[in-house]
Amino acid sequence: MMLAEAGVRLGVIVDRLSPETGELFPGTSDLAMQLDTDALLARYDAITVERDTMPDNALVNTLMASPKAAIRRTMAVLPDRLTQKQLLDELGIATSPWLPGTELAQARAQWGNVVIKARRGGYDGRGTHFLSADDAQPDADEDTIVEATIGFRRELSLLAARSSRGEMAFYPLVENIHRDGILNVTRAPAQQLHPQHQAQAEAMARALLEKLDYHGIMAIELFDCGDELLVNEISPRVHNSGHWSQEGASISQFEMHLRALTGLPLTPPEVKGFAAMLNLLGVAYDTEWLHRPGYVHWYAKDVRPGRKMGHVNFIAQDADTLEEQMLAWRDVARS
Amino acid sequence: MMLAEAGVRLGVIVDRLSPETGELFPGTSDLAMQLDTDALLARYDAITVERDTMPDNALVNTLMASPKAAIRRTMAVLPDRLTQKQLLDELGIATSPWLPGTELAQARAQWGNVVIKARRGGYDGRGTHFLSADDAQPDADEDTIVEATIGFRRELSLLAARSSRGEMAFYPLVENIHRDGILNVTRAPAQQLHPQHQAQAEAMARALLEKLDYHGIMAIELFDCGDELLVNEISPRVHNSGHWSQEGASISQFEMHLRALTGLPLTPPEVKGFAAMLNLLGVAYDTEWLHRPGYVHWYAKDVRPGRKMGHVNFIAQDADTLEEQMLAWRDVARS
Repeated sequence: MMLAEAGVRLGVIVDRLSPETGELFPGTSDLAMQLDTDALLARYDAITVERDTMPDNALVNTLMASPKAAIRRTMAVLPDRLTQKQLLDELGIATSPWLPGTELAQARAQWGNVVIKARRGGYDGRGTHFLSADDAQPDADEDTIVEATIGFRRELSLLAARSSRGEMAFYPLVENIHRDGILNVTRAPAQQLHPQHQAQAEAMARALLEKLDYHGIMAIELFDCGDELLVNEISPRVHNSGHWSQEGASISQFEMHLRALTGLPLTPPEVKGFAAMLNLLGVAYDTEWLHRPGYVHWYAKDVRPGRKMGHVNFIAQDADTLEEQMLAWRDVARS
Repeated sequence: MMLAEAGVRLGVIVDRLSPETGELFPGTSDLAMQLDTDALLARYDAITVERDTMPDNALVNTLMASPKAAIRRTMAVLPDRLTQKQLLDELGIATSPWLPGTELAQARAQWGNVVIKARRGGYDGRGTHFLSADDAQPDADEDTIVEATIGFRRELSLLAARSSRGEMAFYPLVENIHRDGILNVTRAPAQQLHPQHQAQAEAMARALLEKLDYHGIMAIELFDCGDELLVNEISPRVHNSGHWSQEGASISQFEMHLRALTGLPLTPPEVKGFAAMLNLLGVAYDTEWLHRPGYVHWYAKDVRPGRKMGHVNFIAQDADTLEEQMLAWRDVARS
């Protein structure tokens, strides 16, 4: 929906397709219609994917075989944490030490405390399992990887874009604050940043995007370990940690994604001061919010506990005003 | 399209319907589909109209008879300049002196130079005909009105909103600069404003909106005659002179229109500094524009000479920076 929204002023039309049912949701509407695969392939200039896993059916296989689906190359590597880690190692990009799930015993012997992560499909902390040195030994599992636990100061992320013409653009590093494994707040740009980290993160992104001949926005989550910067996870799509850019930057991540996919110029985005984003988790809509400082973005989904129902973006000319605005939301912030 | 765009973050879905063909364009897409009239009436909470004239057919008559079409009351009065002028007179709202087209001779005798305006359908200067004292006498025409020509300093406009709950909100007066009868530039807020004019314009709007029990944004074009403020024309919808509010105000006119139609709170909009809008008239899209200062909004229509193809919004913290930004567009500005 937010991509379709961002397309309007570019004159770019974005429709959404369910890969399971083949239902097409035109633009920002919830009305469903059907087009046959040939019509879909003829209608669109670019096809991309907004999630980690895709069903294995004729529709998906035909669309993903098209040269319009540049994401195909990336989907063959990144959604599997094993091949993702192998790629990072191949490119010499610093990441937490890891081993395949089959080598769990060796990993524990080497690092003591470890994290077991499902190779596919886990996000928002799901599919992740911490194991301390005292815990019983589970069976080795080839559908997992094992990582050493990392003592990090905070999580940062970098939004990087590369267009179908090879141009690149980067957002400033942002700081992500999680609660119970779910992103709660992003602050942009990250404050008190190590003087080398922006350049280091951009170099990592440049290597990855070029290697994958990637078109679009990619979100790279990083552990800030003081001097060292380690890649934690990579999402080949627009990302929750970039939602602040809707009001907080001269070009939102959604617009940048569309520019990159359609070969439009990638102007460097400018941050309009001090920006932040607060996720609205598991709460029902309250029209009173429209009187509060900040820009509410509501997804109009059914309420479920912990579900990302929407977010609020904040923008201010100084850090104190930003904090003041966010304080007006302390009743719905998960803190 | 821009209403559908604004609906996303409110969780409000806007679809567009052609009253001639019954084609429904869901959200921001250009894919057409059909729903029968019962389904249309069941699906939407509010129905409104984005143009002056509507065909007289079963679809339109059924939709407009619904209590969801609050615009019905306004469409019975405002699109006809004769009944619009009568309403202004009834409410004691200052407007240019006028007479029905049938009294053309009397109008010329009284005022000398006059303007003949089609009662219905004219905009961007079309359907408007200036007549100086020396011109030959055309036939009196009951489909027109005649107005005295007014010596005004400039054209201003007020965007006013009233919600289905009766709440109201007003934007600051803006200045509109026309070329060849077509809006070229809007500056918001209007500079060097008479200290009484904002309050006077709001009082006029308040009377109109309440009288019509109107829901949505209404644009009131005004002649700034120094001390006096005269209503020129009224548009019961979002308006070109409010496009600056997309990046220039805390709530865009499109969002405000949707809030008003759906009964959401109408927070007073804040202007984010010095804003302006430049219409892109009759020009083809140039991707190089994406490197320039300003926010391009492109309508993805076929190019025709003089046609409104898109607009650029500017926002700056001081007037000089605003002018500097706009100078980068002097090749496409019609000046």
